[in-house]
Amino acid sequence: MAEPLEFYFDFASPYGYLASHRIDEVAEQFGRSVAWKPFMVGAAFKATGSRPLVDTPIKGAYARRDLARAARRLAVPFGLPQGFPHATLAPARAYYWLAETDTTVARSFARAAYRAYFGEGRDISRPEVTAEAAAPLGIDPDALMSAVQEPAIKDRLKAVTDSAVERGVFGSPFIFVDGEPFWGHDRLDDVAAWLESGGW
Amino acid sequence: MAEPLEFYFDFASPYGYLASHRIDEVAEQFGRSVAWKPFMVGAAFKATGSRPLVDTPIKGAYARRDLARAARRLAVPFGLPQGFPHATLAPARAYYWLAETDTTVARSFARAAYRAYFGEGRDISRPEVTAEAAAPLGIDPDALMSAVQEPAIKDRLKAVTDSAVERGVFGSPFIFVDGEPFWGHDRLDDVAAWLESGGW
Repeated sequence: MAEPLEFYFDFASPYGYLASHRIDEVAEQFGRSVAWKPFMVGAAFKATGSRPLVDTPIKGAYARRDLARAARRLAVPFGLPQGFPHATLAPARAYYWLAETDTTVARSFARAAYRAYFGEGRDISRPEVTAEAAAPLGIDPDALMSAVQEPAIKDRLKAVTDSAVERGVFGSPFIFVDGEPFWGHDRLDDVAAWLESGGW
Repeated sequence: MAEPLEFYFDFASPYGYLASHRIDEVAEQFGRSVAWKPFMVGAAFKATGSRPLVDTPIKGAYARRDLARAARRLAVPFGLPQGFPHATLAPARAYYWLAETDTTVARSFARAAYRAYFGEGRDISRPEVTAEAAAPLGIDPDALMSAVQEPAIKDRLKAVTDSAVERGVFGSPFIFVDGEPFWGHDRLDDVAAWLESGGW
């Protein structure tokens, strides 16, 4: 059986948020699954000397416009939260804690956390806000808040992040299809074409 | 009558080269024309603190792969010339010199210069190489080589570049559709959708 696509994203990445609305559908079209892999893109930015796009002079204004335009086209609720970007360790750790038990629940949680952040402007870098976003899925807030402080969970996120940087991931979203790297939500049509043709 | 799309590009921009193969066709599909506007993207890089993508650690390796992959998909001959990126003042100036008389010839020249650079690896930053690339179109090499030294032609390129930076152009290619900005060859499908729908 074919390996799942690997979907690397940061919870503070607006283009990752946009991609999260399409990636599963693109893969399913070609009978493939997706492994969601939240990581801390800041570590990758350090390696490349990058900074968040929206903080770059001139480019930042364009990026805000491009993001809003792309979100309208996808009919996805979108805004940059006040204080953006936050270091979204809490939801990334919560994801791996949930994934230990049930990857489907973990993915539903990831969608809920992304929606809370970019759809509703809630600061999910605060564990209690992440816990509130998770609660409607039946996830116990206290259990989540203590899980995100567990050394084993912290290490898990760190290991995924280190491995991502090691593999050349330098931005979010970043997708591997059978080892082939694609950077950006604007490569999803290429991902689909690659899956369809087996590469070119 | 609708205004032409504005296609800003640098002759040393590989993604500009890729876009040059599609932009006219995209516009024609919707009954629109395109004004080609070579400019010096280095001036814009200064304003944003950017550097050429292929020179960025880690990202650069991905960009080389992404470019080659995109070129294969478009079935366009492509390689990064030795010594890339060059400051391609000569072809940019030659373009505006030719455009004074005939924009169709100027556009054919632009295609030929791009092909010489990215398709054949010839260093078009050297005026004599630009002149050689222009010769098959019936453009006199000596006239071209003296034109690219004319103060009025130099000023024209500088004026277009200043105006581009003023308008928020920070990369190549950069396209305006009725004032709406689109950055990157990977926004051409969005440009088509925008033309089709009149915006969203």
